Parts: sequence; structure tokens; C-alpha cells
Amino acid sequence: MSLTPLRKEFPLFLKPYLPNESIRTDDRPFITLTYAQSLDSRISKGKGIRTTISHLETKTMTHYLRLHHDGILIGSGTITADNPGLNCKIDEEKIQMNSPRPIIIDPNQNWNFKDSKIEELYLKNQGKSPIVFIKENADIKYPNENVNYERLKFNKDGFNWIDIFELLSKKYQMKSIMIEGGANVINRLLMKPELIDSLIITIGSVYLGKNGVEVSPSKALKLKDVNWWKGTTDSVMCARIDSIDD
Amino acid sequence: MSLTPLRKEFPLFLKPYLPNESIRTDDRPFITLTYAQSLDSRISKGKGIRTTISHLETKTMTHYLRLHHDGILIGSGTITADNPGLNCKIDEEKIQMNSPRPIIIDPNQNWNFKDSKIEELYLKNQGKSPIVFIKENADIKYPNENVNYERLKFNKDGFNWIDIFELLSKKYQMKSIMIEGGANVINRLLMKPELIDSLIITIGSVYLGKNGVEVSPSKALKLKDVNWWKGTTDSVMCARIDSIDD
Repeated sequence: MSLTPLRKEFPLFLKPYLPNESIRTDDRPFITLTYAQSLDSRISKGKGIRTTISHLETKTMTHYLRLHHDGILIGSGTITADNPGLNCKIDEEKIQMNSPRPIIIDPNQNWNFKDSKIEELYLKNQGKSPIVFIKENADIKYPNENVNYERLKFNKDGFNWIDIFELLSKKYQMKSIMIEGGANVINRLLMKPELIDSLIITIGSVYLGKNGVEVSPSKALKLKDVNWWKGTTDSVMCARIDSIDD
Repeated sequence: MSLTPLRKEFPLFLKPYLPNESIRTDDRPFITLTYAQSLDSRISKGKGIRTTISHLETKTMTHYLRLHHDGILIGSGTITADNPGLNCKIDEEKIQMNSPRPIIIDPNQNWNFKDSKIEELYLKNQGKSPIVFIKENADIKYPNENVNYERLKFNKDGFNWIDIFELLSKKYQMKSIMIEGGANVINRLLMKPELIDSLIITIGSVYLGKNGVEVSPSKALKLKDVNWWKGTTDSVMCARIDSIDD
């Protein structure tokens, strides 16, 4: 399905929050945290239920964001539940070139590239092949010549985000990564404000209810450089994290 | 403290969602559900902690909403924690006249009018005296000539909202009531879409974290007639409830 046209005000609205090589002085990529939530801060109606939250115009915005990032990172729970394509359809002629590379956080190897939407798009030259992070010393459960598996140390708090981002920068020359979910990934990263360069959040005009999958960090956070866009049924907030508010 | 001036676009933006006697054909008052939440759908950082979420410009909007309602309803938990004034300061010369009448849902009589902000404002002619709903057959714990106590049947689900609204309509001639919180009151009322005429929700650009007090109804809800306003750091969504989305 093609996208609805990009709303003309998005490029100017989003520009200050898009990857800008001059911002980071270290060798880590620019990190954008982006997701669509309900009013009651749910990203789905329940675990494993794919839920439409955003309007088609903010869906197109997401593809515009993908155009501006080298990688797109997602947790294995979400990719297993939603089977997303993660490609960039802003320009139908250049889908594979414009698409970010999928990065899957999958310590327990729950996700199989084979027969996934990502494989289908890759084989049709409409998306890139994925990088999958698995546990150090693990055997590869689903070997596939089109998947780059990366082994990393895994402890009780999960992988170390800096290890992930530095590897993606050094080995894959990634300068920008957008994080699309799910809730575990987002909630953990919100507590690492020093790693996050931009927040771009779509709020859909719906309640998903208390059994939904919730985004809420373990502590309060102050934001800065806030700007809102109002759409037909959604709004979008762009910001940077100021600090954890203990 | 005086309010910052009302943003000039608010009257037109809010008009379709304000009480309009022609809308209701029954003898119940027009009910507006309105609150300010964080991105992660919290209305405070924790139980009993008064938390600033909204910008001064949306605080002024709340006073403009109060100008348009006969009553302002709040749960005893929130009134005990926050000790709010609940008056309308849109016009410094007409505060008492413009203020809605406070309505406190207090089955267990936790709140005492004496020495409260509401008493202080009432005695200064800057607010109205309250109506307090208590359990049927209960003795009045804090008798006070300036408080109207109303006894109502109370069961395991609390008071029946229709009993409350019909009493306020018949005995007090109230044609419009705004519900300001807290979370228990809001979450319960969201599950009674047939009673709610308008939703006006401010979203502040802050996370309050998972220990905060959360608004999320027990089931998903579809909204309709949605419109957004974007402010300096907040946005405001107006809508009506379409249906419970089972």
C-alpha cells in the first residue's frame, strides 16, 4: 500500500530533531526514540496485539524519519508480535536504498528472519537485511546468510546499550539509529538520557485501556526544546530529554 | 496569584466542547471530563503528591472552563492531597460569581471543609461553598453551616453517577459540571461514555514515571470529533467518546 503524501509542514517541524552529525562529538550514533502511543500511554491493546494508533499522515511521518536514519532498532517481542516491514516507502523508486537497516534485540533468539516480512521485503529489494543481537557464546538458532548476528555480553539488566551503539557505529558505520519499540526497549532507554538525542512521539486520540502495553519510565523525566505538531486526529511532540527528575 | 492572559484562540477552539443546553434532552447536566496528564498518562508523581504538569497558559484555560460550568466535581483523595481552590479567576472582579460550585465525592468523609483552601476562598468571597456527597445513613463527621452534605446510596462500585448528576440537576439546578479528578473518578467515569459530553485533556511535556497516579480506563475507548490545540510546551485534545472498544 502506498503512503499518503507527506504533510508539507513536517520537514521544517522535524528538522531540529533529526540526526545532525555535528551534534555528537563521540563515536556513538545519533539516537532518536520514536513511537506512537494512545492518550493513556499504551503502544498496543495487549501483549502481542498489533494495534492501530496513528493516522495515515503520521504513519507517513514515520517513513520520513526512516529516510533520515541508517538503522532502525526494535525488540524481539515487538517484531515477533507485529511482523513489521520497517522499510522506507517515501519514494517508491528507491525503497531499498532509502530504508534503514533493521536491528533486532533478540537475546533469546525468539525471532526468525525466515518467512518474516523483513525477509520478504529484502528479497523483493524493498528493504535491507537485518542485524540481530544475541547472547555472547550462544549458538545461532536460525542461521541465515542474509542475517548478521552479533554476539554481546548479556547480564541481568540486558545488553549494555553503549556496547550495541558502539558496535553499530564502528563495524557498520551507522551514524544514526531510530528506536521504534517495543515498550521494554523504550522504557529502558528513557532511563539512559545521555544516550538519547531526540524524542519524537505521536499521540493518537484513543484510549487503549489498562491491559495495554505501557510506556512509562521507572522515574520521572524532564524534557526540553519541546515542540508540538497538531494533525487531524493525532499530535506529535518533539523534544530532548533534560534530566531524570528524582 | 493572577493568571496569565487567556490565549486568544481558546474560545473558538473550545466552543464546540462547552456546555450547550440544547445538546441534552434529559434532565441530567452536561458533563465535561477534564484533566492534565503527563506523556505517560500520569496526573501526579505519586499518591498525595501535588505535581505541576501544565504550562501557565493551559492553567488559564482551566479557569476559562470553570467559567462555563455550574459545578466542579473532585474526589476526596485529590482534594485532601492537593487542597485546591477550584475557583475561577478569569475576572478578578467577579471571582465568586464566576466560580463553579465545588462538589466533593467523599463517601468516607476524609475531607474537612474547615481550614481548607475552599473555606478560605469562600470566606473571602472568592469561591462558592461546597456540596459533599457522603454515604446514606452516615453521621456527619464535620458539620459546618457552609457545607451542603448529601447522602446517597453507596455500594461496592461506589455511588451511582446518575444519582449524583440527577440530584445536582434537580436540587441545585446545575446544568453543567466539570470533572477535574482524581484518577479514580476519571477512570470510573470513562467507562460511562453515555454520561460524558466532552473530554478536554491537557498533555504536558513531561514523564512522571511508573510510580505516578495513572489515568487509564479498564477498557479501550474510541473517540470522535477530535481536535488538538498546540501550546508552548503542552497540547490540548478535545473530543467526545464514541464507544467502548471491546
